[in-house]
Parts: sequence; C-alpha cells; structure tokens
Amino acid sequence: MANIQQIAQHAGVSVATVSRVLNNATSVTPETRRKVEVAIKALNYQPSMLGRNLRNSESRLMLVLLPSISNPFYTEIINGIQNTAIANNYNILLCETDSKPERENIYFNMVKNKLADGIISMDPTVNMQKLNELSKDHPVILCSEYEQGGSIPYVTVDSEVAAYQAVKHLIKLGNEKIALINSDEKFLYARLRRAGYERALKEFKLPIRDEWIYNTKELEFEHGVQAMRMLLQLEEQPNAVFAVSDTLAIGALKALNNGIKVDHPIAIMGFDNISFSSMTNPTLTTVAQPMYKMGCLAAEMLMSSMKGEKVESIVMDHELIIRESTML
Amino acid sequence: MANIQQIAQHAGVSVATVSRVLNNATSVTPETRRKVEVAIKALNYQPSMLGRNLRNSESRLMLVLLPSISNPFYTEIINGIQNTAIANNYNILLCETDSKPERENIYFNMVKNKLADGIISMDPTVNMQKLNELSKDHPVILCSEYEQGGSIPYVTVDSEVAAYQAVKHLIKLGNEKIALINSDEKFLYARLRRAGYERALKEFKLPIRDEWIYNTKELEFEHGVQAMRMLLQLEEQPNAVFAVSDTLAIGALKALNNGIKVDHPIAIMGFDNISFSSMTNPTLTTVAQPMYKMGCLAAEMLMSSMKGEKVESIVMDHELIIRESTML
Repeated sequence: MANIQQIAQHAGVSVATVSRVLNNATSVTPETRRKVEVAIKALNYQPSMLGRNLRNSESRLMLVLLPSISNPFYTEIINGIQNTAIANNYNILLCETDSKPERENIYFNMVKNKLADGIISMDPTVNMQKLNELSKDHPVILCSEYEQGGSIPYVTVDSEVAAYQAVKHLIKLGNEKIALINSDEKFLYARLRRAGYERALKEFKLPIRDEWIYNTKELEFEHGVQAMRMLLQLEEQPNAVFAVSDTLAIGALKALNNGIKVDHPIAIMGFDNISFSSMTNPTLTTVAQPMYKMGCLAAEMLMSSMKGEKVESIVMDHELIIRESTML
Repeated sequence: MANIQQIAQHAGVSVATVSRVLNNATSVTPETRRKVEVAIKALNYQPSMLGRNLRNSESRLMLVLLPSISNPFYTEIINGIQNTAIANNYNILLCETDSKPERENIYFNMVKNKLADGIISMDPTVNMQKLNELSKDHPVILCSEYEQGGSIPYVTVDSEVAAYQAVKHLIKLGNEKIALINSDEKFLYARLRRAGYERALKEFKLPIRDEWIYNTKELEFEHGVQAMRMLLQLEEQPNAVFAVSDTLAIGALKALNNGIKVDHPIAIMGFDNISFSSMTNPTLTTVAQPMYKMGCLAAEMLMSSMKGEKVESIVMDHELIIRESTML
C-alpha cells in the first residue's frame, strides 16, 4: 500500500500538504487539493481510519479491562457492553490484563494517546492509583469491583447485603454450621461478602469459625474443588457452604459428587448466576447479578462520560435463585 | 493534551519538522531536535504510539475474530493466542462478530489500514470470499474452522476421524441406537463430524436414522437441552448420543437429569473438553481438542506469516477422554 510520502511525491507537494488535505484543512487551495486527490486515487492510498479519527479526537473505541475471560461472569457482562457499544457505533477492545501491570500500562497509554475514548474496568486487580489519575482527564467507569469513597463512577450490586441475605437463607433452611469459600480479601467484593456472611451469623448467634472460612487465590473450578476438600477434612464438617462465585460453588459441588464421605448432605450456594449454574446436577442455588444489564449500563455510563456529562454510580438489584443444591 | 501543531508553534518550527523529530529522521539538526524536545516536555505532549507504529508499518496488534465469547471453547484458544502474542510483544484485539458482516468489515478495514498486522479467524460464519481477498495482501490464519482446498493456512483437528472414533467407542460399549446432536451443517466441522458419525455406523452395519440426527442453530446449553428433549420424545429412543460440542452435550445431560422418563440409561459423549466438562454430574466423556496449544500455534503461524515466511497448515491430534457419562 502506498504511504503518505509517496502520495506527496506523486502529487508534487509536501507531506504536510497531504496531511492538510486529509484533514480537510481550509488552508489548501482547490488546485492543490485536486492534485493530492488524484495521487491518492492513482496510488490507491487508504488513509488510516484511526489516524484521522485521532485528529477528530475520537476513536470510537472503548477498552474493557478484565483479568481473564475464562470466568463466564465476565463474558456475560461483556455481551451487554458489546451490544450497547455497537448499537451506538462504538467498538470494544477486550483487554485481558492477566493481572499484570505492564499489560495495564499499554491500555492506559492507548487512552492517553487517544487511540481509545475511554475505559470500563472490571479488573479487581487494576492499579487504582493509576486509574484514578487517568480518570481525571479521560472517561473511566468501574463495573462490578469499585472503590469505596472513590471518584470514578461505578455500576455494581450490594455485595454485603446480597451475602447477608444468601447466608440468612441458608440459616432459615435449618443450617447452623455454615462455611464460606471466599476469594482473596484484598478485593473489595470479597471483604464485603465476608462482612455479609458474618452479619447473618452474628444476627442468629451462630459461631464464626476460622476453619470454616477458606480463601482461594483464584476463582477457577479447581479452586472450589480444593476448598471443599479442605472443608470436608475438618473434624467438624459444615452443613452448608456459601461460595462467593458460581465457579467456586460448582467446584465445591464437584468435590461432593466425587464420592468423598460426608456425615450429612451439604447445601451449596453460589454467587453470580452464570449460565452453567443451571446445568449442574444438582442445579445451583445462587445470588443472581444482572450481568448483561450491568454491561449495558456500564457502556451507557461511559458514553455519557465521553459527552462530558456528570455520571452517577448505580447499585443494581440482585436476587436469590433457589435451585436444588440447597434443597436437600 | 497538546497536539502536534502546538508543539510546532512552541518550538518555532513547522509541523513537518516535529513529525521528523518524532520519527527520528536523520535530516534534523541537533539544535532543532533539542527545540522540539523542549516543547514536547513543556507541553507534556504524548506522541501517538500507534501513529508512530503506522509509519513503521506495524501496529503490533493481532485481531482475533470469533462469533461470540460465550462458548468456553473459544476462551481456551484465546488464552493460548494471547499468551503467545504478549510473549512476542504483540497485543490481541478480540473481535466478536456476532456473525454480522458489518462488524466483520470494520475489522477487515483495520487490517487494510494497517491498524492491525493480521487476523486469526475462529469464526465459522466469516465471509470466506472477503477473507481470501484480504489474505492476498495481509497475514491471515484460520483456527479450528477452515476451508478445504483453500489457500489460507489453518490449525485444526481432524473432525471426521475424531467423530468416527467417538461413535465407534459408543458402539464398542454396546450401544446400537446412536443419535447425533449436530450444529448447522453449513459449517465444515459439522459436515465432517456427521460424516465420521455415519462412517462408524456404516462400518458396524447400524442404521442411520434421520430422526436420530438433530441439528441445532447454535451451540448454547439450551440448544442441547432442547435437542435431547426432542430425542426423548421419539417412539424409539436412542441409547447413546454424540453431540458435536461439550456445550450441547452438557445441555443433553441436563435434560436427562431433569427427571424425564427414559426407557434405559443413555450414554452421552461431547466434543472439545472445555473445563466445565469435568464438573458435570456425571462427568462428561468427550473428544479433547488441544485448545490452548491450537491458540499458541495460530499466533505463531500468524507471526511467521507477518515475517513473510511460508506457513504450512497443521492438523493437531485429538484424544478421547472417557468419563462417567458413557459408563452406565
């Protein structure tokens, strides 16, 4: 493909002049414009779409930061973001950070350099200090994980209340020994869900026992299997388990299905309502987050922010979905 | 943020000169370079990373086309592509086409306009004519779905042989009435898997019955549930089912678990070996595709192609993973 230098040479003008024509600058004479346009046609030059958008200072691109696409929780949110973006003539770029700062920097720089118009971050491991800095001059929205008292608008659910209600439901079913499979408590959602778990137990004067609280490093199935195996090895086994993600809960179900000896049936409750959760056997009771809708709203909030509008944070409703895994 | 015009004004030079400095042209005097650099620093100007790469005619971006990220089959391939790309200083942009041509065009144009260096397509609905045209001047690799006798290099498994072996295994287990839950046969992999299914049945002189072949429109769980319900309504129920994806097979398992009356146990076999297939109850027997490795190879092939090297297609080994769903 021809480049801008070749166009300039062919038209007998300077590169700066070609650039001015491409940018519809008024300082170009009609005669010069014609020469450049003839050269563009003759050499079949295709000016960079994004290069031009850069000068109009919009790229029509949204970046979506997430730690990994392996968790269906994220893919269902992404579908909402994507459909809203496309309907508004935006594209989204999924940026898996794999929780690595150097990958994050690449994406932050894309926004700084106007290669993207803004960021929706769903990454709980994101460097909040850098993101806050970026958000001073560029549109940024947080989805799901957010910063308490922070200045970046977010869309999320109330993790503390949701966990409280989930555990209360387990208690109402007659369970008194309730374990928690939590993720790493460096994440806000993990701390809030633990707080809800503890609030419910305290309210019913049930013991909060350290050995019934298991923290996993990640959210994959295998981490749930491992956590459940540890809980089953305890001298006093729990009779119900609240896991902070469906992936962990599904792993816990798997450990139970594996024929490990249990003293009594164990109820399992998850969090998210990913599509798998109704495919397990038994099907999984869970706290549903409106993932698709959260994605749509995050995209709408980002577009509002791009227009310079003030954007308010949104806390969405969750709901308990009662399925077989708690009906024992 | 300052633009290049402001830098030029601040430094007292032309825009073309600033551009020359940014591109490390040798025709700039040290004194001029210093003036421009002082202006860049003073105005906190950040030159466009991609804008500069454009002039070096590489963007360090790979596009990955896929119909949707809801199917874990794709996410496991993407992890392989992504890790290989990042290790080689490339980024990947996931392009969900949602099987819509207008979205596809956006991505094809990004490559034509050198905003991306090449494409890995995993999208069975891709417009092959346009992709073939693009591949004449730009690096393109097909992953999983490919074109028989086509010119674009691919990495895939042998779907016909894999399906043949899967169905032969079901026959060896004593099943004589074997149903097929297939996807839309406009896709090559669907036609090949059906051919393998039929070859095994013919070899063992078993009937190929139209009512035991069910084609779904999509690959989501619910389509598998629906397909199995239809098969269970037949006067003569099959005693084994081969589904062309794990998502469909997991839906079929769900329909069986739902307490629908069956005359006898029904064996279920899937295809892919997504991580969820070992979490179901019963766990799912399946044909494993080396998804992560396929992704790594696709990325390596694309990088070879970018270097102008000749790239050979690769057919990878599959394997049967025998789990509980066929041990009845």
